[in-house]
Amino acid sequence: MAIEMGRKKSEVAAYTYKPMRNTSVNMDFKHELESLKEQLTFNGRIKDTNYDNIVIAGMGGSGMPGRIFHELYSEKPVYLVDDYHIPNFVGPRTLFISVSNSGNTEETISATKQAVEKGAHIVTISKGGELVKYGDEHIILPKKNLQPRSSIGYMLAPFLSSFGICTQKELLGVYKILDELDKDNEECKQYAVEIFKGEKIPVIQGSAPFKTVAYRWKTQFNENAKIFAYANSFPELNHNDTVALTHTYNKKAFFFFAFNPQYERIKKRLALTSELTNTELHVIDAKGKNTIEKLFYLMHYGDYISYHLSKLRGLDAKDISVSLEMKRRLA
Amino acid sequence: MAIEMGRKKSEVAAYTYKPMRNTSVNMDFKHELESLKEQLTFNGRIKDTNYDNIVIAGMGGSGMPGRIFHELYSEKPVYLVDDYHIPNFVGPRTLFISVSNSGNTEETISATKQAVEKGAHIVTISKGGELVKYGDEHIILPKKNLQPRSSIGYMLAPFLSSFGICTQKELLGVYKILDELDKDNEECKQYAVEIFKGEKIPVIQGSAPFKTVAYRWKTQFNENAKIFAYANSFPELNHNDTVALTHTYNKKAFFFFAFNPQYERIKKRLALTSELTNTELHVIDAKGKNTIEKLFYLMHYGDYISYHLSKLRGLDAKDISVSLEMKRRLA
Repeated sequence: MAIEMGRKKSEVAAYTYKPMRNTSVNMDFKHELESLKEQLTFNGRIKDTNYDNIVIAGMGGSGMPGRIFHELYSEKPVYLVDDYHIPNFVGPRTLFISVSNSGNTEETISATKQAVEKGAHIVTISKGGELVKYGDEHIILPKKNLQPRSSIGYMLAPFLSSFGICTQKELLGVYKILDELDKDNEECKQYAVEIFKGEKIPVIQGSAPFKTVAYRWKTQFNENAKIFAYANSFPELNHNDTVALTHTYNKKAFFFFAFNPQYERIKKRLALTSELTNTELHVIDAKGKNTIEKLFYLMHYGDYISYHLSKLRGLDAKDISVSLEMKRRLA
Repeated sequence: MAIEMGRKKSEVAAYTYKPMRNTSVNMDFKHELESLKEQLTFNGRIKDTNYDNIVIAGMGGSGMPGRIFHELYSEKPVYLVDDYHIPNFVGPRTLFISVSNSGNTEETISATKQAVEKGAHIVTISKGGELVKYGDEHIILPKKNLQPRSSIGYMLAPFLSSFGICTQKELLGVYKILDELDKDNEECKQYAVEIFKGEKIPVIQGSAPFKTVAYRWKTQFNENAKIFAYANSFPELNHNDTVALTHTYNKKAFFFFAFNPQYERIKKRLALTSELTNTELHVIDAKGKNTIEKLFYLMHYGDYISYHLSKLRGLDAKDISVSLEMKRRLA
């Protein structure tokens, strides 16, 4: 059975979305991006990680650190919650990490309350907010005026240090990599110009260990540049998207990015995908000496494309008023 | 650093994809769809599920049963592998389930070999193939001449029965639900006509417990109708896609489906998403008395839209020759 929703536009469009077209505010967003390298020195740390499994709750920008951690860490089962409900297996042997920049995300609070009931060990990561009422441990984020998606460094640092994902020395290398990109992101701007001129929809093809970074790019295109974007990953995409690439409608509406694969087999898959489907792939090669440098380089590279695109479109990268309006209406 | 791939089309387009335009073959695909209800009586079963965690390897159509199981079952941590590598925590207390319709999927074989090394208990689900060399237990699928994506019933049945996800009585209800849709899928055809006439790209907005079904629709649009499609889910999409919906390029190129949510809070989110972004959502209401009936109804509903669309486009729903060519080139 089908229901049509939104057909009668006169009835439903009671709210009119008013975009903020303010490039001075947009300049501030550049400062948000430039703050990423400093964020990695944040010393918030989870005290005890000795649990059987790890469940991480977080939505949108605040869900990203858990997603990245899930891809990088595989010593124990990690389960991601991006909804109101938690899995039944959560119990006293679960390390439950709740991430919400504001500390007031309703889905994350709902999930965390359920984890409290199940006796999990709760670690909250937030600037404050209601969430801290439920934690056994609290990691309080610096109260900078950053968008959740811009405080990815603060939110990710506790995961990197607490679980030994990288060394302090490796983090110093990240600073340098990000600083270079902050000073020269002309290549990112050129991509933004191509997307802008062609009014394209980006498709980002990730691959291990940077599948999550492809999703990060998608969300940055959505929130900063206010355009649709889609992320998928090798080798899974070869089992479905590749067939579509041969015959799809509107192929010219899309702009294809792929991350230069870290594994030979995936490199071959990428080349064959381009060849067999006759698709132009814009391949981004991650700079960096190790996984963590490459991860942040790729992530920040996408940040800059979406930022430049917002400027070209005359839109404020920071503006997410429709999301805020939704929160108000839901309250 | 960026690399352009596929720019020089004359150099790379050595292979020319030849679509099969054969509606008689397409009739066979209808029979594949109609076989789904019978597939659910398949009695393959995992003997012992008493392990600490469950890891499931599978790609594309053969990855789908694991994805659905992951969403429905949460008594233990379930981890999905859709790549060549397995997580480090896999060990003797891991139940490792490998699903490959053919039994010859290279990613799944690679992952399974690694799981053998780690001493996991291996259950293979396939029609045969190399995969059975590595299993402690084998569930041999009936050797029907079905596409992997069309044997979802055979591949999913062992999960449903072995983990007590539904009763035999509930499965009988599924038969009736699917049979009705096999006899009357006119509504699905109408959606296919709308997509066909407008040359649209479907976006499918899922929500729990049917987020995976949205992904299934996406893959069916890809493989059967050979068009791009994208799946996302409430409430996560409200944290990124919703912003894009206010301003994106090419919004008219997309056709928005949403599943009628099972939870009140998500129903409210869906209505607000449509209203605040002024987006027409085509809401599909799942028929059925319980989760398992609704799951199969929704899944089959999408099967039929993609099937009808392939017919309207004069393409063979079964044809995935580009995927097969890629496998040959990789071998």
